[in-house]
Amino acid sequence: MRILGIDPGFAITGYSVIDYVGNKFNLITAGAIETKAKTPFPYRLSRIYDDLNEIINEYKPEVMSIEELFFNNNIKTGINVAQARGIVLLAAYQHQIPIYEYTPLQVKQAVVGYGRAEKKQVQKMVQSILKVDKIPKLDDITDSMAIGICYAHSAKFSEPL
Amino acid sequence: MRILGIDPGFAITGYSVIDYVGNKFNLITAGAIETKAKTPFPYRLSRIYDDLNEIINEYKPEVMSIEELFFNNNIKTGINVAQARGIVLLAAYQHQIPIYEYTPLQVKQAVVGYGRAEKKQVQKMVQSILKVDKIPKLDDITDSMAIGICYAHSAKFSEPL
Repeated sequence: MRILGIDPGFAITGYSVIDYVGNKFNLITAGAIETKAKTPFPYRLSRIYDDLNEIINEYKPEVMSIEELFFNNNIKTGINVAQARGIVLLAAYQHQIPIYEYTPLQVKQAVVGYGRAEKKQVQKMVQSILKVDKIPKLDDITDSMAIGICYAHSAKFSEPL
Repeated sequence: MRILGIDPGFAITGYSVIDYVGNKFNLITAGAIETKAKTPFPYRLSRIYDDLNEIINEYKPEVMSIEELFFNNNIKTGINVAQARGIVLLAAYQHQIPIYEYTPLQVKQAVVGYGRAEKKQVQKMVQSILKVDKIPKLDDITDSMAIGICYAHSAKFSEPL
């Protein structure tokens, strides 16, 4: 099963492609779609759409695992993240990729076994599970890996969107 | 100038196509993209995308005027509206249509001349400006007309997204 893990955002969308076969993980690739702050917002959305389509066409994931959106204090940012997340769902749907979504709590639970685990613990566990030499500079990339792992560990109990 | 007015939503996206030439309005068409409540959310997004692309291809609007998103009490609904709105921005961008956004206050101000006007006043004014015989059943359609009129009345002072 090839999983596309996504940490959605409009400035940075973290993604990782993970194979999960017979309880073994194999990280195929991971990275971030970054869009520049001073470019028009619709352009940023189209960059996310185009880049994600390229990633899907190249790596042909069978499922997408994506974080559910929660709102922090900044509503303006939250709205823009949601707008970008809609683009990600659209691209997956257009490729007929089933979409699974998980809360941050579910992700931590599935990766560390403890829903209130700290970010560092999650990162170390991701690193260990996927045998990543270096933790990526962008947290969004590691987060997308955790979200991908979460699907692998919870697929049996989850329904797609 | 042919304007596409949009009242974004995931259950109902109101749209109207309005020609504005020499201070005269001509309503070309108006309607709603409706998606069924019990269908999967990514499917609903793709319906909005596909239907909007059809509308754009058929009517070839030169600008899009869309309401800015504000959050009411229901965050869950707000997130989903934002996700759908991202799709609308993407479709417009892909057709190289400049996008203008306005707050509800700006729309009321531009249509009625008074930012705190009541919904009924706005509807009556829209009806009068566009010479609509019957107010549409769905408020979202009339709202999209108001948003389109807002662009016509404020374009000189607005910058696209």
